[in-house]
Amino acid sequence: MKAYKDRSKEELLTLKNELEAEYRKFQDLGLKLDMSRGKPSAEQLDISMGMMDVLNSATDLKCREGIDCRNYGVIDGIQEAKELLADLIEVPADKIIIYGNSSLNVMYDTVARSMTHGVMGSTPWCKLDKVKFLCPVPGYDRHFAITEYFGIEMINVPMTPEGPDMDMVEKLVSEDAAIKGIWCVPKYSNPQGITYSDETVRRFARLKPAAEDFRIYWDNAYNVHHLYEDDQDTILEILEECEKAGNPDMVYKFSSTSKISFPGSGVAAISASYNNLKDIKKQMAIQTIGHDKLNQLRHVRYFKNLDGIKSHMMKHAAVMRPKFEAVLNILEQELDGLEIGSWLKPKGGYFISFDALDGCARAIVAKAKEAGVVMTGAGATYPYGRDPHDSNIRIAPSFPPMDELIQATKLFVLCVKLVSIDKILESKQ
Amino acid sequence: MKAYKDRSKEELLTLKNELEAEYRKFQDLGLKLDMSRGKPSAEQLDISMGMMDVLNSATDLKCREGIDCRNYGVIDGIQEAKELLADLIEVPADKIIIYGNSSLNVMYDTVARSMTHGVMGSTPWCKLDKVKFLCPVPGYDRHFAITEYFGIEMINVPMTPEGPDMDMVEKLVSEDAAIKGIWCVPKYSNPQGITYSDETVRRFARLKPAAEDFRIYWDNAYNVHHLYEDDQDTILEILEECEKAGNPDMVYKFSSTSKISFPGSGVAAISASYNNLKDIKKQMAIQTIGHDKLNQLRHVRYFKNLDGIKSHMMKHAAVMRPKFEAVLNILEQELDGLEIGSWLKPKGGYFISFDALDGCARAIVAKAKEAGVVMTGAGATYPYGRDPHDSNIRIAPSFPPMDELIQATKLFVLCVKLVSIDKILESKQ
Repeated sequence: MKAYKDRSKEELLTLKNELEAEYRKFQDLGLKLDMSRGKPSAEQLDISMGMMDVLNSATDLKCREGIDCRNYGVIDGIQEAKELLADLIEVPADKIIIYGNSSLNVMYDTVARSMTHGVMGSTPWCKLDKVKFLCPVPGYDRHFAITEYFGIEMINVPMTPEGPDMDMVEKLVSEDAAIKGIWCVPKYSNPQGITYSDETVRRFARLKPAAEDFRIYWDNAYNVHHLYEDDQDTILEILEECEKAGNPDMVYKFSSTSKISFPGSGVAAISASYNNLKDIKKQMAIQTIGHDKLNQLRHVRYFKNLDGIKSHMMKHAAVMRPKFEAVLNILEQELDGLEIGSWLKPKGGYFISFDALDGCARAIVAKAKEAGVVMTGAGATYPYGRDPHDSNIRIAPSFPPMDELIQATKLFVLCVKLVSIDKILESKQ
Repeated sequence: MKAYKDRSKEELLTLKNELEAEYRKFQDLGLKLDMSRGKPSAEQLDISMGMMDVLNSATDLKCREGIDCRNYGVIDGIQEAKELLADLIEVPADKIIIYGNSSLNVMYDTVARSMTHGVMGSTPWCKLDKVKFLCPVPGYDRHFAITEYFGIEMINVPMTPEGPDMDMVEKLVSEDAAIKGIWCVPKYSNPQGITYSDETVRRFARLKPAAEDFRIYWDNAYNVHHLYEDDQDTILEILEECEKAGNPDMVYKFSSTSKISFPGSGVAAISASYNNLKDIKKQMAIQTIGHDKLNQLRHVRYFKNLDGIKSHMMKHAAVMRPKFEAVLNILEQELDGLEIGSWLKPKGGYFISFDALDGCARAIVAKAKEAGVVMTGAGATYPYGRDPHDSNIRIAPSFPPMDELIQATKLFVLCVKLVSIDKILESKQ
């Protein structure tokens, strides 16, 4: 297909008329579709229903150590839950703390604790004039929301196909002691589905931060969230790499079973060095008497081990894969060669990241919404909701049923075309 | 029985010899008993086992509003959980937020948020030179641990049989703008089991704090934790009283089902004015995507309504009542008239508060420990672990089985006698 930019004004105007008629047909359908959030579909949730039967009134609710999981106690998680989650995120079982239901909450608590109490004895960040975080972009809006909430200045770092721009990360981190952290989704990144290369991980581990309390916030959200059984990304284990590089305390690794079992009713965890865990436990002992051990037990008894999780995730993949492929097929069929947008083909995770022509993302999302399709807000993948190019749009294919997803994606490409034509016509004035 | 202080030195020395022989017999038993924490017993946990059967793989996991409780969403709790917990703590269902498993965590978060973000627009406490909390004493060690962790200065306020000394509370709160809160366990208080009188609650509601961001931290931990069906304390509802007094925003009311269903696997809540809830929700939206809705649903489907909770709590009472009575009987039989200790007879809650002669509490707890009985650490019921009289000891009768409880209490009174004799002999030198 001929690129839009190479078409004449007349050709574009004729096309625009046709596309507008198509758009009006969509509007007449009165659609109400949602492609905005990385939510599992009902079909995916059904996969985990067996978990509801694992514990019942006849079950022995003591964990392996003999502790009654129905009562208070065990602040950092029962041993078998530590082992399961440690295997999941590829760390030793003594370098993990099991939390409640939300890894986002763990990340929030980690930043909040640093604000009021510093990191392993450093000055509490609330006593500093300026605290900054590096934010690989496009990235996860809820990460950015946490740092914004605490008044932490966010600095954009562009993503490359290998991960964040490490030249920039190395330079900034080593020069500016106000930089205390960087948000990372290292595997099947949100929204691009990029997995950091070995070289990127090693460069992270070898960082020489100016701030002693600089930490890598390694959000391992999609570790086992593959789309394919035989074509999976792998990633170097960051704790081990940091240790090898002489930086054992430089990373917090976050994880949860939210998109493995039930979102909102899963089990979250943090993994870090002994020094960091000791620092964290000092706070935990004040904050709570302990997290939900029955739910920990439920997860362990259901999944049994990492193999159990892996085969479970292939059931998720069987639901997710056709959805990703449907969206990618439509993008390819409808947009290939037009030079009005680009996208990546992830092998896992929850999103497809679409880059429109500069200055078009907001208009595309607005136009889709007018016809009843809600996308993630344009700009959401950037700190402060400000995409400097107004270009990136996050597509979340998981939640809608297949027929709705196809309809929504068709409308989406139509909106991309319409907004792009206007943009190109503008430039031809 | 003749008071120890009125006995001669010789009488006391003879008695001491006898008691020491008795103590050695206890030591020979090699006991390992725990009366330290307010933990339900296994027998009590068994009462709630039916809860494990309420949800299974055949259950409809949509809540009344039609929301799939297995997925993300509903940040402040499903409607039926709000209604159940609101009924439990006697507030309207639209003035409540449902949290995770721990009300202690909600209290921690409330103080942490005030530190970093202030209260309804006030200056963040971490930006202030000095923040103070009033602490009715004796009180709950975990409350004091939170305020200590955040560097908040704690001021002791003596308890009376009607609640905290309100003359002192009124004076301090109205004069000192650095005082931002007061910790209260208003019903069956920890550790005394005192329920605040109507007059006390009304005086709380009518406080005129110098600080606009002063809040009453009303920890409704033992609202339905009665020992008797026909002899129960009642308390005025503080939110309503604050509203009537023109102070609608002055109170946070905390609650959980921890000692109703399963400690660690219950449901916690906060209740407050709309203005406060709005302030809190701003933070929650950053902190989490939502709490465990399946566990909320599990609680609602099991208890059904407040009557369900009330009849459930009578089963707890049937286990707790004989234990309280056993301890109180031993105290009475062994110590009445000796003038070496005093205690209250609570009608609910989890503790019996014992006041030894001044300067004896640490020695009594240490002596009990030497013979294998762990009590709550002396001083724990005071801020910074410092009981100025070294007098108060918290007895927690719930956890040990009856035979162990009796043995532990007998050892305890023996230790009280021995330490008191030494104290009195000292004064007779």
